[in-house]
Amino acid sequence: MGIARGALLTDQYQLTMAQLYFRYGLHEREARFEHFFRKNPDYGDHESGYAVNAGWGWLGRWAARSRFGEEERAALLSHAADGHRLFDADFVDWLGEVSWDALRYETIPEGRVVHPNVPITVVEGPLGVAQLLETSLLNHLNFHILIATKAARVVGVARGGRVLEFGLRRGPDEGGIAATRAAFIGGADASSNVGISHEMGILPQGTHAHSMVQVFMALGEGELGAFRAYAEMYPDECLLLVDTIDTLESGIPNAITVFEELRKKGHHPLGIRLDSGDLAHLAVRASQMLDGAGFDDVAIVLSSSLDELTMFQILTQIAEEAPRYGEDADRVIGRLVYGVGTKMITSDGQPYLDGVYKLVAIDGDGEWRPAIKVSDTPAKMVNPGRKVVRRLYDQRGLANVDLMSLADEDLAYPLQIHHHHETGISRTLEQARVSEVEQLLEKALLEPPVDDPAVVSEARIRRVADLERLDPGVKRLVNPHVYHVSITRRLADLKRDLAANAR
Amino acid sequence: MGIARGALLTDQYQLTMAQLYFRYGLHEREARFEHFFRKNPDYGDHESGYAVNAGWGWLGRWAARSRFGEEERAALLSHAADGHRLFDADFVDWLGEVSWDALRYETIPEGRVVHPNVPITVVEGPLGVAQLLETSLLNHLNFHILIATKAARVVGVARGGRVLEFGLRRGPDEGGIAATRAAFIGGADASSNVGISHEMGILPQGTHAHSMVQVFMALGEGELGAFRAYAEMYPDECLLLVDTIDTLESGIPNAITVFEELRKKGHHPLGIRLDSGDLAHLAVRASQMLDGAGFDDVAIVLSSSLDELTMFQILTQIAEEAPRYGEDADRVIGRLVYGVGTKMITSDGQPYLDGVYKLVAIDGDGEWRPAIKVSDTPAKMVNPGRKVVRRLYDQRGLANVDLMSLADEDLAYPLQIHHHHETGISRTLEQARVSEVEQLLEKALLEPPVDDPAVVSEARIRRVADLERLDPGVKRLVNPHVYHVSITRRLADLKRDLAANAR
Repeated sequence: MGIARGALLTDQYQLTMAQLYFRYGLHEREARFEHFFRKNPDYGDHESGYAVNAGWGWLGRWAARSRFGEEERAALLSHAADGHRLFDADFVDWLGEVSWDALRYETIPEGRVVHPNVPITVVEGPLGVAQLLETSLLNHLNFHILIATKAARVVGVARGGRVLEFGLRRGPDEGGIAATRAAFIGGADASSNVGISHEMGILPQGTHAHSMVQVFMALGEGELGAFRAYAEMYPDECLLLVDTIDTLESGIPNAITVFEELRKKGHHPLGIRLDSGDLAHLAVRASQMLDGAGFDDVAIVLSSSLDELTMFQILTQIAEEAPRYGEDADRVIGRLVYGVGTKMITSDGQPYLDGVYKLVAIDGDGEWRPAIKVSDTPAKMVNPGRKVVRRLYDQRGLANVDLMSLADEDLAYPLQIHHHHETGISRTLEQARVSEVEQLLEKALLEPPVDDPAVVSEARIRRVADLERLDPGVKRLVNPHVYHVSITRRLADLKRDLAANAR
Repeated sequence: MGIARGALLTDQYQLTMAQLYFRYGLHEREARFEHFFRKNPDYGDHESGYAVNAGWGWLGRWAARSRFGEEERAALLSHAADGHRLFDADFVDWLGEVSWDALRYETIPEGRVVHPNVPITVVEGPLGVAQLLETSLLNHLNFHILIATKAARVVGVARGGRVLEFGLRRGPDEGGIAATRAAFIGGADASSNVGISHEMGILPQGTHAHSMVQVFMALGEGELGAFRAYAEMYPDECLLLVDTIDTLESGIPNAITVFEELRKKGHHPLGIRLDSGDLAHLAVRASQMLDGAGFDDVAIVLSSSLDELTMFQILTQIAEEAPRYGEDADRVIGRLVYGVGTKMITSDGQPYLDGVYKLVAIDGDGEWRPAIKVSDTPAKMVNPGRKVVRRLYDQRGLANVDLMSLADEDLAYPLQIHHHHETGISRTLEQARVSEVEQLLEKALLEPPVDDPAVVSEARIRRVADLERLDPGVKRLVNPHVYHVSITRRLADLKRDLAANAR
């Protein structure tokens, strides 16, 4: 497998910095890094009002197989610039002893709804080790969150219809594997991706492609021959792709013929799949034709460039068009299944999350000192210090604000809370308006989940629960309401003072 | 590692189809599939006029480690729908014997410029095996081509300045590893991604991040202390990130102080990195300040959300702004190095290539029969049959057209060639206008390259050569000229007849 997937899945500067810390005796000094993102995914013509946290268990898998072993150390020792070695033997020996268990972790559990600028992963421990973890942590978590969020949006418009992840063929190389797991956390019900589905204990889904129909056509048996062969092979899982020749003129009539043959033999066909053309119109017409033949309970799977906006538009069009064909729109919609591929697995429109991993505190000879990175852009100034994050719920029981405070700070009502970076904006929160206060960060171990299917399954439950407690305006597909992310007065003051000192 | 990365990196329907072919005795029938894409990457506000082929050696790595072994077969045998097994024991036993060596391959070599609708990978052999390869082939090749193409565009505007790939932290999980290799093929000179860089024999690049400066600041040593520590540790590779506090007021003056100290000790500083703010303006000012201190040969590395359009704009602005500060624009530009991250490694704006793998012919009892998939969209109708692809060069020696013809067809001048899907468009090509004819597809083995660094290095040379023979209009960043992709008269006729018969 080579050395690309293990501990050297990192950026070169993590190693040069680690060696510098090692040389100056700083590598074992306690430091705290926080991982957060600055903006929800913005897909160009629409944007998300929230994100779904994901990836911790996946990062744990990486960590378990990633040590600076012999091969890795040999590669680093071979790195010579201008003829002299970049990494010294004593540093490389030290790398051989590095263990991710030397660090302490807190994370917001997978599946939970998370918001910009709030630490979602916290890493504390020896500076050298914490620095070495940065790249892989960001690589794995940022992408997982990105895809889980996209999937949650897609699932959110499906009105309970099953969502199948179909994107592997155009996914980002083997990043497509992580994407499938993340899509499960975001709410996809199943995937076509076989290996990871089995690993996650979710049966992979899929029937046949156009090529199967083409084979039978080229051999003179036509679409009907292909459908018959498929029905004979899979009499109880018969789902037929009907657009290889002509959906309305050939595919659906042939499917109905075969379904009738199955019915006579006591089998129950599963459905048809529409993969091209005007999916909304075809879904209505297909529903009408299937109903006419007495197949009013078989599914209609839609696929072809679906994303949350397209699906929303299709459902809107069905509501308008179904009555014209004597069909009940809700019933048509109720039989739909969505095969969502490329645009979900690549988070089309916003193919990355801008997550960062920032130093916020370091041990200054026995006491924690807050660290800051100033910036001309106030939104990019890091919230310094060791922090805790609380989610406050309002009297309706809906999440109202994610509040960052310093770790050694007690909250006292009425709370004076400030916008996380705009200095002029603050408000006062009376205790009576707060129905519940919840700590978001939990202690965690960085290790492969003993039972990852259970981890994913619990994450799905958390996502559903959190989305139920999120204001509908924040969940809007387009132009969502902005969720409050705030900091306490003391944190705001600390930030201001540190920034002034740095300059 | 689990089973997700091996032979089960596939879609479920490949397996259900393969079992059907097995059951009907079709699995060993000879079939031909062709891999091609339909559209060059279109980034929304700009689009590519060409693509760069890549990924074959990477797919070979996958193939070498991917068999249907015991674990894979056990997973498939465990798949039960409604209580009964989906895959039968005899089929699963057959899977255990499947070898990718049973197939014959042709491919356009990595690094070559390729165009839409032209087969770039051809797979021939037993239908069942060829079907099973589809998903992984598309997953690996589509993404590799996507990123190699983006990198080629970025490199194309760098005017010879080095391009460093910096994207791993926001790349698509471990797809970021393939992306680095693809970026090398596309022309990136080096990468921060350590493991794969070593595997490819290209030294990884990187110096330090903001966090290192923050550490020294929090410990009371300030930016200057951080720079001094770095210079002492790496006196001959001293490249300093100057925007942690304030680029012009703090970072560059401190860097110059440290550079002067290095110079006194006989060392030669490498340069500075600008990572925020108005990069064009700061590059001019930095150049001026460095020149003033006698460091007129140190590099200025630019990073922060770069892509080809941003880089083009930066260079345009420098040309305008440099003279105002008494700087020669070409000299400022000549010292630039580009750290290009997120937007290259995710192909921002177009995060997928629409590559497909289509059945084009099948053995009909001893003779090849062309296969077709008709479509209401003529552009989506597959060019049927076993084909060869030739690139014809014009009298200037520039590539003029990629021409598909049937494998058993001789070309005779004057050539009558047709648009690959628009039936009304054709032209006649006299022999005198053709300076060179080149076959693009070459026989290949699907196996891990014995020497992948050499493969990547040769691919880079091919890319440069092909781009030199490509019309400048086709290489335009925005609104490029459309390269001709044509089919012969005989192929056009076959396509028309098959489509009519299918309907």
